[in-house]
Amino acid sequence: MTSPETSPSTTLTTLINVRRGAEAIDFYTRAFGAAILSRMDAPDGSVVAHLSIGNGSFWLADESAPHQNFSPETLGGSTTRMVMITDDPHAAFDRAIAAGASSICPIRDEEYGWRIGRVVDPFGHHWEIGKPL
Amino acid sequence: MTSPETSPSTTLTTLINVRRGAEAIDFYTRAFGAAILSRMDAPDGSVVAHLSIGNGSFWLADESAPHQNFSPETLGGSTTRMVMITDDPHAAFDRAIAAGASSICPIRDEEYGWRIGRVVDPFGHHWEIGKPL
Repeated sequence: MTSPETSPSTTLTTLINVRRGAEAIDFYTRAFGAAILSRMDAPDGSVVAHLSIGNGSFWLADESAPHQNFSPETLGGSTTRMVMITDDPHAAFDRAIAAGASSICPIRDEEYGWRIGRVVDPFGHHWEIGKPL
Repeated sequence: MTSPETSPSTTLTTLINVRRGAEAIDFYTRAFGAAILSRMDAPDGSVVAHLSIGNGSFWLADESAPHQNFSPETLGGSTTRMVMITDDPHAAFDRAIAAGASSICPIRDEEYGWRIGRVVDPFGHHWEIGKPL
């Protein structure tokens, strides 16, 4: 049996919980140029979608408290940060702000060797945008 | 200028906020066979680490409320789920439970075409463990 930690086929992605999932898909498309890899719309209007940005991807779903899937708006904060590594952090940051994200830290060169900044999106998820120098 | 969405060098990972970061590193090593790619220990005992599992990786850091980095223990829930795709979901699930995670949904074959289950770890982060069938 191959153990997960040594199998090259083991991968990790993240599913973020949001309110207004359909709006969130539209936002991430505009803010980060996300492409929709898959999208499932339920009769109640909730969505589950798999989005790609460059070589990375993430999942998005409407929150559901009975299933312990809480949005940042419900909990009053976020328990993770998405980390986007990209060639031009300034351009990606500015595009996110123009789409409606808010700046937490502007892009700058940090002493630990990264050019990096941070935004929070309209759904309460935080994004570190940068690259190692 | 290359836009982030079309650049193959753009990647996404996730940074999870925890209490007891050093303990968390130990847990993820035992539960998922995580390898430590980098680790920075601060004088106050807090840590930032980059861990790999198979071909995937994630970051972990001690929470810091002044920086809007909240752990699931602080907020009373998690705003994201980690999604681990692996060849043998049953083995990965069982190993996580043996290391101290709690079952939310046992591994089963879902009608949407995945063999998948879900655990919550001792630090409050949720992990979907499965594979598409």
